[in-house]
Amino acid sequence: MSDVYVLGVGMTRFGKHPDRDATDLGAEAALEAIRDAGIEPRQIEGAYCGHVFQGMAMGQRVLAHIGLAGIPLTNVENVCSSGAVSIREAALSIRAGEHDVVLALGVEHLTSRFQGALTPDPDDVEATVGLTMPGIYAMRATRYFEDYGVTRRQLALIPVKNKANAARNPMAQFQEAVTVEQVLGARPIAEPLGKLDCSPVTDGGAAAILCSAAAARRLNGRGVRLAASSLRTGTVDPEPVSMTFEPLTNAAARDAYERAGVGPGDVSLAEVHDCFSIAEALRVEGCELFPRGGYLHAVERGEASLGGRLPVNPSGGLLGKGHPLGATGVAQVVEIVRQLRGEAGDRQIEGAKVGLAHCRGGKAAGVEGAACTVQILVR
Amino acid sequence: MSDVYVLGVGMTRFGKHPDRDATDLGAEAALEAIRDAGIEPRQIEGAYCGHVFQGMAMGQRVLAHIGLAGIPLTNVENVCSSGAVSIREAALSIRAGEHDVVLALGVEHLTSRFQGALTPDPDDVEATVGLTMPGIYAMRATRYFEDYGVTRRQLALIPVKNKANAARNPMAQFQEAVTVEQVLGARPIAEPLGKLDCSPVTDGGAAAILCSAAAARRLNGRGVRLAASSLRTGTVDPEPVSMTFEPLTNAAARDAYERAGVGPGDVSLAEVHDCFSIAEALRVEGCELFPRGGYLHAVERGEASLGGRLPVNPSGGLLGKGHPLGATGVAQVVEIVRQLRGEAGDRQIEGAKVGLAHCRGGKAAGVEGAACTVQILVR
Repeated sequence: MSDVYVLGVGMTRFGKHPDRDATDLGAEAALEAIRDAGIEPRQIEGAYCGHVFQGMAMGQRVLAHIGLAGIPLTNVENVCSSGAVSIREAALSIRAGEHDVVLALGVEHLTSRFQGALTPDPDDVEATVGLTMPGIYAMRATRYFEDYGVTRRQLALIPVKNKANAARNPMAQFQEAVTVEQVLGARPIAEPLGKLDCSPVTDGGAAAILCSAAAARRLNGRGVRLAASSLRTGTVDPEPVSMTFEPLTNAAARDAYERAGVGPGDVSLAEVHDCFSIAEALRVEGCELFPRGGYLHAVERGEASLGGRLPVNPSGGLLGKGHPLGATGVAQVVEIVRQLRGEAGDRQIEGAKVGLAHCRGGKAAGVEGAACTVQILVR
Repeated sequence: MSDVYVLGVGMTRFGKHPDRDATDLGAEAALEAIRDAGIEPRQIEGAYCGHVFQGMAMGQRVLAHIGLAGIPLTNVENVCSSGAVSIREAALSIRAGEHDVVLALGVEHLTSRFQGALTPDPDDVEATVGLTMPGIYAMRATRYFEDYGVTRRQLALIPVKNKANAARNPMAQFQEAVTVEQVLGARPIAEPLGKLDCSPVTDGGAAAILCSAAAARRLNGRGVRLAASSLRTGTVDPEPVSMTFEPLTNAAARDAYERAGVGPGDVSLAEVHDCFSIAEALRVEGCELFPRGGYLHAVERGEASLGGRLPVNPSGGLLGKGHPLGATGVAQVVEIVRQLRGEAGDRQIEGAKVGLAHCRGGKAAGVEGAACTVQILVR
């Protein structure tokens, strides 16, 4: 099995971009990744584009915009893991020997598709009776408090940490730190979650250039190795599903650790899918990076902060950097590559060697989510 | 590079299915392919699902429906080539050594998404001024008549042939042959094309089980080899684009011939993207199966009919079998596999050894289409 490397990365500023569209954002990210890789556009042999709501032939529009039309491109969708699967499929095309250098792209222009918050699919029976995403995660938070004896105030430390990280990331949607009091006093969304516990509506693009080991040596000599790209899809658990532990996340993480030949103790930093504050706890515990029920205590001790034992969402995460669905999974890889190359500026994690990216999309109560990815990158 | 085989295929009847949905159609096709392959569902290690209009996590819904939730699945979209790219990506995952046995699925329930004919995307500037799909192909037909000195009446022979083939295919939407007079007298859609020159609005599902050479030997010993699965995406040609010849189709076909080690003269049957009658001529000529400008004469001589030198669209094609976008590319492979195995019933082509499947989606005038696939299967 041939190794796959990330040769270059790029992303747009995440945020509201009313004067731009998904094509334009995707093109900016792709061109930056190409420059960062130090290659010519025409060296790219194939491409994948992850998005959810941007309509037909999204990736083709980006390729045409940057003068790269003609090469094989496949658009991919796996709900909030869409960007992550564009990385996975790009890596598979390299491992198959089909391509040597591949563009993995993620884009989403949500503000042109939704007025305000995302509305559930009309076919979503649970949502029509109130079990929307905020509702589901509110139930999970309540249950987590009950199971593990932690408090609403402790949960507020997650948005505080992530927004502080975002304030150090010039590409993040939010550029200001918030206090616990601000999190607790924010407009209620679904008890106990307030507005600052929820990821925002975001437009953005992110891109990575992936290549074979041979191409990495030949082209720029500073590729970061993609040691694992694991995907699992939704399942109805035969046991009653736990509200506070994610078998799907755990299965994807265990598969990724095995492929990468590393364990949770080797991870230097993690970018995980904090679509809601409580989700970060469920994800890092599902990935076995922190003990079950122990994450909020660890956050309180500063373990997950920049400078802590294992920084979580140093980019600001979805809560701070923003969440343009299709771009999110690629942007996690952008952050990890920059951290592993020592180019993360004010939020650099010293000596970072192993980064883990986790995405998860789809329903999360009763039925497990539609797709979950865990990727591990190694310097 | 490891070979990839098609181990089993399945499809639903194509047509209007008002009482069913895409999940249900996909499940029927997948279960039939699994039975046809003679494997247990749990032997499937990964899956791809091609569709255009069915919303988020389409493939996951099918997997959950058939008790296969949990395995890696990626949804793929490339306009009318969406089903074909589900085959391509499944094949790449096998060649990468990621999976040994993979489900490639294509589904579409168009009648629940559109009232009558498909409406263009609101962002499609050309369509808003009248350059819809029927409009584009009407222009191409007019130009083809002019360039090659053929007639409207000769063009009508394509729907006549394909509907006659469909009448021999119990899975086809249309079950009755039509005459030249009926084609010429049908309701006008875009001069010179009438209703019988246009593919219909269709619901349907199709599935194929792909596997490695080792798995093919181990599992049922009658796999059909997928010798090439080529993909090219849209490009603006530097030369003025020809209305009557498709460089994109030609590029994909030449790549496929080279990979498969066969030439146009080796092809026993072709399933090509006859979204409109004239499109069949453009596709078979783009694939170099017939000389440029010569196809309608060849049809007149019976060369493309069942029993002819090179039967084209023996399944009925899009005009006769129907065109459920995401399912179309997979259904072409279903037909070719059945023909190569000698299981095509009343429409069996004797001694068929090499089958070619061509799909093409997206705009077709001025700018080349968004995606084009050519796949070659060898007995």
